[in-house]
Amino acid sequence: MHIKSSIHANCGVVGVYGHPDAAQLTYLCLYALQHRGQEGAGIVSSSGTEFKFHRAMGLVSDIFSDVNILHELEGTIAIGHNRYSTTGENKIENVQPLVMNLKDGPIAVSHNGNLINSKSLRSTLMKQGSIFQTSSDSEVIVHLIARSQKNTLKDRIKEAILQLSGAYSLVLMTRNTLAAVRDPKGFRPLCVGKKDNAYIITSESCALDLIEAKYVRDVQPGELIIINENGIHSEMIFTPEKTAACIFEYIYFSRPDSRVFGEYVDKTRRKFGKTLAEEKPADGDIVISVPDSSNTAALGYSQKSNIKFEIGLIRNHYIGRTFIHPIQSQRDFNVLIKFNPVGGVLKDRRVVIVEDSIVRGTTLKKLVKMVRDAGAKEVHIRVSSPPIISPCYYGMDFPTKEELIANNKSVEEIRQFLNVDSLEYFSLEGLLNSVKNGITHFCTACFSGEYPIPLKEDFSKDQYESKNKS
Amino acid sequence: MHIKSSIHANCGVVGVYGHPDAAQLTYLCLYALQHRGQEGAGIVSSSGTEFKFHRAMGLVSDIFSDVNILHELEGTIAIGHNRYSTTGENKIENVQPLVMNLKDGPIAVSHNGNLINSKSLRSTLMKQGSIFQTSSDSEVIVHLIARSQKNTLKDRIKEAILQLSGAYSLVLMTRNTLAAVRDPKGFRPLCVGKKDNAYIITSESCALDLIEAKYVRDVQPGELIIINENGIHSEMIFTPEKTAACIFEYIYFSRPDSRVFGEYVDKTRRKFGKTLAEEKPADGDIVISVPDSSNTAALGYSQKSNIKFEIGLIRNHYIGRTFIHPIQSQRDFNVLIKFNPVGGVLKDRRVVIVEDSIVRGTTLKKLVKMVRDAGAKEVHIRVSSPPIISPCYYGMDFPTKEELIANNKSVEEIRQFLNVDSLEYFSLEGLLNSVKNGITHFCTACFSGEYPIPLKEDFSKDQYESKNKS
Amino acid sequence: MHIKSSIHANCGVVGVYGHPDAAQLTYLCLYALQHRGQEGAGIVSSSGTEFKFHRAMGLVSDIFSDVNILHELEGTIAIGHNRYSTTGENKIENVQPLVMNLKDGPIAVSHNGNLINSKSLRSTLMKQGSIFQTSSDSEVIVHLIARSQKNTLKDRIKEAILQLSGAYSLVLMTRNTLAAVRDPKGFRPLCVGKKDNAYIITSESCALDLIEAKYVRDVQPGELIIINENGIHSEMIFTPEKTAACIFEYIYFSRPDSRVFGEYVDKTRRKFGKTLAEEKPADGDIVISVPDSSNTAALGYSQKSNIKFEIGLIRNHYIGRTFIHPIQSQRDFNVLIKFNPVGGVLKDRRVVIVEDSIVRGTTLKKLVKMVRDAGAKEVHIRVSSPPIISPCYYGMDFPTKEELIANNKSVEEIRQFLNVDSLEYFSLEGLLNSVKNGITHFCTACFSGEYPIPLKEDFSKDQYESKNKS
Amino acid sequence: MHIKSSIHANCGVVGVYGHPDAAQLTYLCLYALQHRGQEGAGIVSSSGTEFKFHRAMGLVSDIFSDVNILHELEGTIAIGHNRYSTTGENKIENVQPLVMNLKDGPIAVSHNGNLINSKSLRSTLMKQGSIFQTSSDSEVIVHLIARSQKNTLKDRIKEAILQLSGAYSLVLMTRNTLAAVRDPKGFRPLCVGKKDNAYIITSESCALDLIEAKYVRDVQPGELIIINENGIHSEMIFTPEKTAACIFEYIYFSRPDSRVFGEYVDKTRRKFGKTLAEEKPADGDIVISVPDSSNTAALGYSQKSNIKFEIGLIRNHYIGRTFIHPIQSQRDFNVLIKFNPVGGVLKDRRVVIVEDSIVRGTTLKKLVKMVRDAGAKEVHIRVSSPPIISPCYYGMDFPTKEELIANNKSVEEIRQFLNVDSLEYFSLEGLLNSVKNGITHFCTACFSGEYPIPLKEDFSKDQYESKNKS
Repeated sequence: MHIKSSIHANCGVVGVYGHPDAAQLTYLCLYALQHRGQEGAGIVSSSGTEFKFHRAMGLVSDIFSDVNILHELEGTIAIGHNRYSTTGENKIENVQPLVMNLKDGPIAVSHNGNLINSKSLRSTLMKQGSIFQTSSDSEVIVHLIARSQKNTLKDRIKEAILQLSGAYSLVLMTRNTLAAVRDPKGFRPLCVGKKDNAYIITSESCALDLIEAKYVRDVQPGELIIINENGIHSEMIFTPEKTAACIFEYIYFSRPDSRVFGEYVDKTRRKFGKTLAEEKPADGDIVISVPDSSNTAALGYSQKSNIKFEIGLIRNHYIGRTFIHPIQSQRDFNVLIKFNPVGGVLKDRRVVIVEDSIVRGTTLKKLVKMVRDAGAKEVHIRVSSPPIISPCYYGMDFPTKEELIANNKSVEEIRQFLNVDSLEYFSLEGLLNSVKNGITHFCTACFSGEYPIPLKEDFSKDQYESKNKS
Repeated sequence: MHIKSSIHANCGVVGVYGHPDAAQLTYLCLYALQHRGQEGAGIVSSSGTEFKFHRAMGLVSDIFSDVNILHELEGTIAIGHNRYSTTGENKIENVQPLVMNLKDGPIAVSHNGNLINSKSLRSTLMKQGSIFQTSSDSEVIVHLIARSQKNTLKDRIKEAILQLSGAYSLVLMTRNTLAAVRDPKGFRPLCVGKKDNAYIITSESCALDLIEAKYVRDVQPGELIIINENGIHSEMIFTPEKTAACIFEYIYFSRPDSRVFGEYVDKTRRKFGKTLAEEKPADGDIVISVPDSSNTAALGYSQKSNIKFEIGLIRNHYIGRTFIHPIQSQRDFNVLIKFNPVGGVLKDRRVVIVEDSIVRGTTLKKLVKMVRDAGAKEVHIRVSSPPIISPCYYGMDFPTKEELIANNKSVEEIRQFLNVDSLEYFSLEGLLNSVKNGITHFCTACFSGEYPIPLKEDFSKDQYESKNKS
Repeated sequence: MHIKSSIHANCGVVGVYGHPDAAQLTYLCLYALQHRGQEGAGIVSSSGTEFKFHRAMGLVSDIFSDVNILHELEGTIAIGHNRYSTTGENKIENVQPLVMNLKDGPIAVSHNGNLINSKSLRSTLMKQGSIFQTSSDSEVIVHLIARSQKNTLKDRIKEAILQLSGAYSLVLMTRNTLAAVRDPKGFRPLCVGKKDNAYIITSESCALDLIEAKYVRDVQPGELIIINENGIHSEMIFTPEKTAACIFEYIYFSRPDSRVFGEYVDKTRRKFGKTLAEEKPADGDIVISVPDSSNTAALGYSQKSNIKFEIGLIRNHYIGRTFIHPIQSQRDFNVLIKFNPVGGVLKDRRVVIVEDSIVRGTTLKKLVKMVRDAGAKEVHIRVSSPPIISPCYYGMDFPTKEELIANNKSVEEIRQFLNVDSLEYFSLEGLLNSVKNGITHFCTACFSGEYPIPLKEDFSKDQYESKNKS
Repeated sequence: MHIKSSIHANCGVVGVYGHPDAAQLTYLCLYALQHRGQEGAGIVSSSGTEFKFHRAMGLVSDIFSDVNILHELEGTIAIGHNRYSTTGENKIENVQPLVMNLKDGPIAVSHNGNLINSKSLRSTLMKQGSIFQTSSDSEVIVHLIARSQKNTLKDRIKEAILQLSGAYSLVLMTRNTLAAVRDPKGFRPLCVGKKDNAYIITSESCALDLIEAKYVRDVQPGELIIINENGIHSEMIFTPEKTAACIFEYIYFSRPDSRVFGEYVDKTRRKFGKTLAEEKPADGDIVISVPDSSNTAALGYSQKSNIKFEIGLIRNHYIGRTFIHPIQSQRDFNVLIKFNPVGGVLKDRRVVIVEDSIVRGTTLKKLVKMVRDAGAKEVHIRVSSPPIISPCYYGMDFPTKEELIANNKSVEEIRQFLNVDSLEYFSLEGLLNSVKNGITHFCTACFSGEYPIPLKEDFSKDQYESKNKS
């Protein structure tokens, strides 16, 4: 899976407590989590008396390229966020962390996931006189905390969280406290690390590696962690229920060198490739991947099937922010500028392409044509996930049901559409067997249409906000 | 009065209802009101279903220099604001109009003046869970409207306004309504005009002239005006009380070609000059002004005294946004770059300088030196207002009491400080007689220390906000 | 004269030799000369071994607003330039000083004036293989110096200068030398000042005043001045001829507080006003000026005629860089945004407007309408210069002959066009008598059509350059 | 080889003749050649009567991201350039194509390579009065053409080219002609393609693939090609001599899917890997590459050695323009942010790293540490090129001799420095045998110190230019 307009959504969240370089460490963690969101990023630090923050559209390293910006984010506590929008308009106002002033001081929030009852909560709050600043569903959380008349921050957060429904891995900060919450289904990953005496909260463990921190454990589904001068405090605030971890984190979204939901992603993806090779063999001369997202699955497929692994497509890494297409008539252009086929490798070969998933299928169709134009004798596709037939309401940015090719076409019709000699998907059973670890249950709604939390709200695009160019 | 760090504060507000070029007319009005605030400006328009807005730091003509911006501000209702900060930090978040989303749609507010009970109102609202976005005192007004559970917009605005204390000339807009309010003391000007079938609300009448609209009347102290599809509706929402119009609008702040508080500014200023000439004559060869603010008063002084009016100082209009002072050792620099003395006019003359007011006196001291260096034989200063001894809490940006020269020195001491041969101030009695019109009572707190509304809050700088660089 | 599209052209040049703050002083001088060109500016300094420079479009104070820029322009010699384009396209490449590398090191040149044989010189140089970087006529001078095979810099400059024809007040700099040249006709002003041991060369003496330097003397027509470690060296490099100083410098262009061609501008302009009052009296109640350019002449007219001087038009100084005209249908807009009529002054009066010159007449026509709309009973115009009937080829940016109103219409026809009750121009004789000083002869080609140097080249717009957006 | 401060230099050049979308095709070719230079890029087009151009610092897709820019580059002829500086300062003035105005119209030049006699040519030209605009060695070429008094463009180009010494693959354009020249040694690649009736000149054939043009043939060493309305004309302007094609184009620089010097790069690199496996076997469990530059060689090594190929390092592609290093104390940071080790793959394995070349060795040392930290039991390095002992004067941006690790240390010392269990380089003989094709002779000066053209000039950094911030 590889083209912007299809899946990648989700976000990255980070929190650091108790380190003199809190903002710097947050910055490095955000950099490590860049794959979780390239639209914008921000860091808020607390000096103990006030908050400092910087948020902007763009890549983490560009946003913080001015050497002075990080120095101004002083303090020993900081939180950060990488944004890839799922709801709300894509504008600077929605770049997190959210920062708002409550009666007892400022609060900052970073949210990964997607609430499914934010509209009704928002409507109720506005009727009571709350004024919303953004179109983000995350702002609801802060208003709920602001409205709570409980005595302690912990109790106010609890009261707010218990009203939420959906997917949320949250990091919150006040002047002297860092908090982390994961929804009771555990849709999105979140883990705790330690570097010297500092605590780190992060979406994926690869961020801990970059800052040479130690992975401690995952934040548990339904767990609220509070870290302050009294140390670290944990509380399970929900009745335990069956989890629904997003299996797409393994298939495509998480970084291969991360450990999420208790297992290394790279190892799991290789297992997908191997099991797929057994389940859906192919008669080919070479196995190639669609770089970089299906590299590991393709290598696993090659190793189990004993078909030679080759680099048949080279990914162009100089695309820049915006690539205009100067000549409208040229077909298949977005594929041509992203991938270069290696003629010598593909010519006269029976090529097995291992792909991690198929959303709309339009890009893959162009890639297949490119591979054929480079001289491939046969093209066989093996997909390391089942057909995607339903949208995700918990954070993955899939298109509407109508745009999902597997919702409209049979496997044979997709094969014809892609113009390949054979096409096979991984079975849901094979997929789940490859990750079975006895503890975690996964959300497979995109493959099965069975949603772990029933939807009650309309999910067409929100219209809360007036447009502006401030 | 002429140097940035001393007096000019205040703001300009505009509202237009019922014109296809509502944003364009608002823009022109803001341009005409540019003297009321050069820090930033903004316009919000309503298309009937949504708001569009553009706000930025800088001059009106620069902010809207891109020809497309105004075109995008579509709709037949619009409000605008020129900002010169009095409370709150000088940052883009505080540039008005404020735009916020209430339960029944967006609202926009432009505020000229200064509330004196905003801290206590803000504190109460935050305790109830309201979340503030800016450090501006104007935001309190919107939260009060949001909290009101009254049924109609008019009643919600009324409930909110009745809780305010201080100076406010307000323009408010919802999707289909324009409203205007002036505080019961009538500190700041606000008037109504008409252009064809459209209504215009503006701080000063000079804005009506630029758009070739007709001046209708002033908004009355304590009056709430609502304009919507049912026409224009007026209601006096306060018990009538003695007014306190800011006399500094006549002395310095308003544009000479405006009519405020029922009289032309230019005419009033000339009267000041003439009466001053009678009250405090001077023995000189020529009368000069400090351009451009005391031009009219100086001309009046010259005409009544029969001392020849001359242009002895030329103002430099190419200063640009920022003028760095490259050589620290050069004395009196900020005066040198603003004014050029005309040697041929000043040399060997006894010069009477008419100045509108003296705040700190530092700039005037440098001007006097410049005039002496150009060869003046004697220098006499006549000030067309009384000594300023007290700060303003209703919108004029005077410095602290300690920095006001007349608060610390006698007139003779000021004369010595300025190094002039004679110095005379206008008497408060002479000033008030020159504006006496039987209806309006004026606030003269800066000259007398007697404040029309007693202060209950501390007026040191606010600290609500965390710092940011979003 | 007051509207951009008509006359103001010309440039400002500055040179400083032998001061540790050479670039800072140059900056201040350019600021004082800002009226000579607002399109762009630049400074080049020499550290003795290398040149540093900064050039940009815009106002001097904005271009050098970053406090570090001047600090980086190190060295004790510097030259500067304010540009208002006369030939060549208006783009950053043409902003001076020109800096080019010759065989024995870099050279920088600032040029005020306009060559009339630059096309033929350029053509010859290109045939010999010279490559031009700009479309500016000034670049020809540098190529001529580069081509010279003379032994000393002075001789190379001389050889180059002797080939030029037209108007040029030049400042040149090499690593360790400052040079100044004025053409043998002396069209444009140029003077020498001293501050401590440093020498200053500048277009007008007002720049010397701002930096508290002493005016020494004018650079003479045909004089070459070389300043280096051996001191100041002067040489008259042309056979003496009758001068042709631009009388428009007195009428409109130079700053009133400058001394040019040996006399104060303000004093000369007042003389114009007084003589005009005698020569062309008017029957009016008040005299007003078109601020600020005709202020002094109007005051002189008032004093001699005993008609009361009034401020009937106020100039708006907040126009900013670009003012878009949002509503096309509004008539006379460019005048409305620049001037505010003072109703109380003009109403029911017979108004005498003193204007310095009339180019196209379109703006003045709108001003007259504005004055009438404000209630003036009669409007009489007195112009402190004769009718302009011919373009200027020596630096003033007049339009083509066809666009000059006095070239197409009689005085009576202009009066009707302007819709005034009477219109009178200053006579050429009266003008010349007012400046007669026995030494200087003036160029009056724009009034008489008699050009002091005959034209041999076509003066339609150049087309040397390809367009670019580098 | 992979770190910016070491090798990658060189440039990319493009020319298009006879296509209505000439600038668009040039843009796409530059995009395909982005790997040859990321510092800046530019395009110049000829409409037949004038040139249009746009040049800027940055990536091709960012420079031309505004959709209007390409549209303004009208005409059917265009040339382009991707810059990676080798001599001259890195500033916008040096971004090519150079555009200059000669006597018979404008000329534009794109140059890949490096002249070794530019200093003496430049010095002679300046003595004759030529004025240089840039510090680029390429400008010499244009001045030589400008100085030539030959009658035809072809003869002027010939006269100029015959005076050059060094490496140059040039594309030149006048209003109606496209020309291409390759130096007689053929250091840098250059080829001709065709798309419909249009001719394309480009550094590498991958650019032809992107625009779906057909590869025709290489421009021959010493060949001058002229394309105009009379068709394509070729002339060998030098006496034939032994070629010296840069073998580093195969080892590292060219794109794997290009065909240069008559052979596919990918195929050649795989051959390097295979031959290296035979020549320098290794005792390991897995072979990994340093992505992406040594991917193909590593795959070749794996296939010939039968040691399993694995993805042990993942390259981070979100680095952005500038990555600041916020915590100085963290070691090995630039490697950590570029590469993520895959723990599951490396742990407890004997790892063979195939690297394309070693320049300073500092980055590789950090990579080795990263691999060891990830648990590798042994680390063996095999380099697919011989030790680099001498700088390149023909375009590759190697550091000074002193900084080249192989110049200072024996292979055993380098092994110790890198802290690996074994280190073996490819032999020069093995390398040359792998590319032997009977026709092309290669420059191997960086491995042997034997330069095909003797050096006569000093190659320390140039100092022609004054610094500026225009």
